[in-house]
Amino acid sequence: MAFSQELRDLGVKVSNWGRWGDDDQRGTANLIDAAAVQRGTACVVGGKRFSLAAQLRENGIQMGQPAGRYNVTLAPTSLNERDQHAPGIWSGTDDFITMSTCAGTHIDALSHISYDGQLYGGRPNSTISARGGASWCGAEQLEPIVTRGVLLDIPRALGVERLEAGHAVGAEDLDTALAATGVVIEAGDVICIRTGDMAYYLEGDGKRYAMGSDWKVTGLGASCVEWFWSRDVAGAFVDTYAYEVMPPETGNWDDLLAVHMLQLRDMGMLQGQNWDFEALATDCADDGRYTFLLVAAPEPIVGATSAPVNPVAIK
Amino acid sequence: MAFSQELRDLGVKVSNWGRWGDDDQRGTANLIDAAAVQRGTACVVGGKRFSLAAQLRENGIQMGQPAGRYNVTLAPTSLNERDQHAPGIWSGTDDFITMSTCAGTHIDALSHISYDGQLYGGRPNSTISARGGASWCGAEQLEPIVTRGVLLDIPRALGVERLEAGHAVGAEDLDTALAATGVVIEAGDVICIRTGDMAYYLEGDGKRYAMGSDWKVTGLGASCVEWFWSRDVAGAFVDTYAYEVMPPETGNWDDLLAVHMLQLRDMGMLQGQNWDFEALATDCADDGRYTFLLVAAPEPIVGATSAPVNPVAIK
Amino acid sequence: MAFSQELRDLGVKVSNWGRWGDDDQRGTANLIDAAAVQRGTACVVGGKRFSLAAQLRENGIQMGQPAGRYNVTLAPTSLNERDQHAPGIWSGTDDFITMSTCAGTHIDALSHISYDGQLYGGRPNSTISARGGASWCGAEQLEPIVTRGVLLDIPRALGVERLEAGHAVGAEDLDTALAATGVVIEAGDVICIRTGDMAYYLEGDGKRYAMGSDWKVTGLGASCVEWFWSRDVAGAFVDTYAYEVMPPETGNWDDLLAVHMLQLRDMGMLQGQNWDFEALATDCADDGRYTFLLVAAPEPIVGATSAPVNPVAIK
Amino acid sequence: MAFSQELRDLGVKVSNWGRWGDDDQRGTANLIDAAAVQRGTACVVGGKRFSLAAQLRENGIQMGQPAGRYNVTLAPTSLNERDQHAPGIWSGTDDFITMSTCAGTHIDALSHISYDGQLYGGRPNSTISARGGASWCGAEQLEPIVTRGVLLDIPRALGVERLEAGHAVGAEDLDTALAATGVVIEAGDVICIRTGDMAYYLEGDGKRYAMGSDWKVTGLGASCVEWFWSRDVAGAFVDTYAYEVMPPETGNWDDLLAVHMLQLRDMGMLQGQNWDFEALATDCADDGRYTFLLVAAPEPIVGATSAPVNPVAIK
Repeated sequence: MAFSQELRDLGVKVSNWGRWGDDDQRGTANLIDAAAVQRGTACVVGGKRFSLAAQLRENGIQMGQPAGRYNVTLAPTSLNERDQHAPGIWSGTDDFITMSTCAGTHIDALSHISYDGQLYGGRPNSTISARGGASWCGAEQLEPIVTRGVLLDIPRALGVERLEAGHAVGAEDLDTALAATGVVIEAGDVICIRTGDMAYYLEGDGKRYAMGSDWKVTGLGASCVEWFWSRDVAGAFVDTYAYEVMPPETGNWDDLLAVHMLQLRDMGMLQGQNWDFEALATDCADDGRYTFLLVAAPEPIVGATSAPVNPVAIK
Repeated sequence: MAFSQELRDLGVKVSNWGRWGDDDQRGTANLIDAAAVQRGTACVVGGKRFSLAAQLRENGIQMGQPAGRYNVTLAPTSLNERDQHAPGIWSGTDDFITMSTCAGTHIDALSHISYDGQLYGGRPNSTISARGGASWCGAEQLEPIVTRGVLLDIPRALGVERLEAGHAVGAEDLDTALAATGVVIEAGDVICIRTGDMAYYLEGDGKRYAMGSDWKVTGLGASCVEWFWSRDVAGAFVDTYAYEVMPPETGNWDDLLAVHMLQLRDMGMLQGQNWDFEALATDCADDGRYTFLLVAAPEPIVGATSAPVNPVAIK
Repeated sequence: MAFSQELRDLGVKVSNWGRWGDDDQRGTANLIDAAAVQRGTACVVGGKRFSLAAQLRENGIQMGQPAGRYNVTLAPTSLNERDQHAPGIWSGTDDFITMSTCAGTHIDALSHISYDGQLYGGRPNSTISARGGASWCGAEQLEPIVTRGVLLDIPRALGVERLEAGHAVGAEDLDTALAATGVVIEAGDVICIRTGDMAYYLEGDGKRYAMGSDWKVTGLGASCVEWFWSRDVAGAFVDTYAYEVMPPETGNWDDLLAVHMLQLRDMGMLQGQNWDFEALATDCADDGRYTFLLVAAPEPIVGATSAPVNPVAIK
Repeated sequence: MAFSQELRDLGVKVSNWGRWGDDDQRGTANLIDAAAVQRGTACVVGGKRFSLAAQLRENGIQMGQPAGRYNVTLAPTSLNERDQHAPGIWSGTDDFITMSTCAGTHIDALSHISYDGQLYGGRPNSTISARGGASWCGAEQLEPIVTRGVLLDIPRALGVERLEAGHAVGAEDLDTALAATGVVIEAGDVICIRTGDMAYYLEGDGKRYAMGSDWKVTGLGASCVEWFWSRDVAGAFVDTYAYEVMPPETGNWDDLLAVHMLQLRDMGMLQGQNWDFEALATDCADDGRYTFLLVAAPEPIVGATSAPVNPVAIK
């Protein structure tokens, strides 16, 4: 087998290489201009704020698949005590953590995924090394996202509570959900796609969240890629563990992670997963407004290929 | 020696214990109401965005003092490779980090500092343990800050490039800088105080940034505490290593970290350090507008006593 | 409830506090004199060597109970590459690990467990802090163990393949197994007690190894403590997850970890768990010789309360 | 430039590829037979024991060069407390560490260094990956070393206190020091080479230890390689930071780490650095006996390319 030709062709079609110069490391963040910031700001009416991050905890989202993704560990390097060189009556606690940068709610750096040996912009993936990480498109290149966010609540639009395991969210699902919002997407908007999967995790069923059911997980299908591209959206974030549907819709295992490949490598599009839209979705359903100011500023870890973020939706 | 009586008295005066209920863990975040969000949003005019975070890197801000504060380490758990259970043609990189939660730009959780064995709200500091961290006022209790930010650029207001090592920023400095902005502080605003120290770090002199000169470091003095309290500001963030001046202004070493003690334990006020105001300050000086929408959403690490954050100023 | 009086009395009886001076941090390592080294060396006949350590791996022995004990993580900080300051044609790999010091095969430092607020020698357990660890009886005080080892193969002596979950290995079991060896214990010997539990782990049933069955785990019972004490053995190591039997034999949950408490705090005795005696036991059964030179040199981690070790039996 | 031809030729000459079979991962550990164990054991006369490991501590041996080698960090995951699922009156402390596997006293796995893309036995270095580490010649393949050790005390033999920075220990130095011992090397012996550098570290001058002086560091020269090979020694361990001399004796920077390359890749020889021979050397000088039983059992970290070890010399 090999990467399916229609997906390979789609990659060529949606490619943004060179669009913002040969040395561009920002990708679709280029689409977030002052107008997008103002458009987002205009969505702030009442002053409500929603954190879209899941809490980072020892028994958090990661379940050991893929191997090597670790939840946070927390251990103090001081505990209600003072430094020997700092006298006084105070007591302080300092904490030390270890974690995978994509353990919880995160944004992928554009260097996260490659194919045919190439990253976004055509740079070789050998620009990533163990010593120093990604010298091209590392997480420090991810600037804070400040734009209008649009919530597409797929299950609500489809009249179901949650999507079935293995449901590939497709362009028609996005259309349906978008129609329910009455919003017209503009270049530089960010799309927040709710599948409802995060509710499994929040309810305590981390295994269902991570592994789905019958070896199928819910996520974006390949038709989303062109949908995003044709609208010049700046990013798309989801409330699932794997971002995209598995197994691949084509039935060809060599297409696994095709959405990652096309969006990160070819489009240079901002994406990330494990976002929590539950409270936000309830509020949007209540007031009928599915747009908000989205501010998502990932940790600027030099050389990392993904970064933790606590995104905020402000209405 | 002992904690100076006037500081102890000041702690009683500025105490917010019980103000928002006996079980309150939000502290001055309570002051950020819908009006504060709207007031901040109203500051967005042109759409400029400023990250206020210093990059996290191996040879970053921490210098080994205090002992046990570690810069980030970055090491891949996959490097342009696939999981054995995930076939295909893609290549991916996953990263693993270790760091102190206060290694770089951060917000203190209210549990970070105590005295007389008590944390904010009068809870015993024994509510913090090595297993699980802070069960009272952990970092997961820090909700995203969304409000109006006001930059007080002390050196610019004083007509100097940077403050001298050991300069205690006092109430009169805040008044002078505030007067230069023409802003009237309102309850729920957040104050960003620039000393210029961060420029040392950005220029490559991390030692000067961290250690100051002649064993003196620049930072807030005790008179700031009442200044913040009397105006009901929601938080105050600085561009220095230690937040407050050292040695203590009183000359009494038992007053070391008095500002931390009074603000975190007594006021329950949001604070943090290693914020980078350099680019923002230049912009504010250029257009004469020292207010902005501040969005600062710390990583929700359950039980941590401080949390990394990438704050964003939007003008 | 409270700590059972007969166990508390036993603690007083077996106490070694002050026996080797008030400042002693070596405990029963004092019993390993030159004669013990020579006695161990005399056991080397054929030259066979057995590592008694389980491999350290990501999906290793730790199962999440108790919380906060983590298997090793391994991530490279260079991968077939060179340092920028070190030219040449070589390629090198450097590794970074995280782990709990008691994740795998380990020795407890005498500071690991206390009761009534006291550690071995009567020092307060407040001598352990998050900054710096144990300043009294840290792992750096554990010198290499070099002495005669004696394997007591309990299931073989009892004529069963493995012990039942919840079997409390008692003094009579030790007597039975010792009788089968024909050895006379001498002061300074180290006892290696095989229950067979490690075989579960090696076969792939880590859960059975860690958690036992029906909430019961196999391990040493309280009568072993006096048995060790009366013979002045220098240490006792086991092939189980928890070292001692659970639930407590007395039925009193306040007696949980009584063996740890009496051996570490009162006797100052060397102990540790997750040792692998499988290959050694087969060899001893084959040649009828249950003694060997035991060399166990734990990692000298300053301030740690336990330390990984790769013990070697040489016959 | 390129790798010097005489060194490349030496690599061919000393190659042990295939000597113990095509699938061999043990290298010169194959030379440690029962006779070597017995020969080592016969050196135990009085019963003295010497740990050859430097303590692992936060401010330990590593100095930031090469980048990415980190000293140990130690932080508790419980501190004088109990697990919520484990009641009782006991208090326990558990520790979590991070470190580079070669931070302190260590043994290199044969996978640590390659050239021309090949590891020991001709396997490609692509057998090492970020996910899982070295699948060929990982540290778990390093069995415990139990053999006769021979101390070659170079400065004492040369009549100086310590060697000069940049001194390349050569075959003639080894001959001189060996002559002073009166020992005849036999196949399977391990050589411990003292330069005296470790004394700098132990005295507190970690910079001199790590960085030498005038950009020169003391270490083994290339002539040692053939010396070891011609005598079939099983391993050679040193008391320096870098193992081999720097800059290269040839003046050709492409020869940097030639000793590592030839010993690890071509000979498959056991080696390691940061061993502490200070106390042992004094004892050997006192009693004139430079042989001992050496037991060095590295931590069996699956996939690691080096491993911490606490070696023991027993006389």
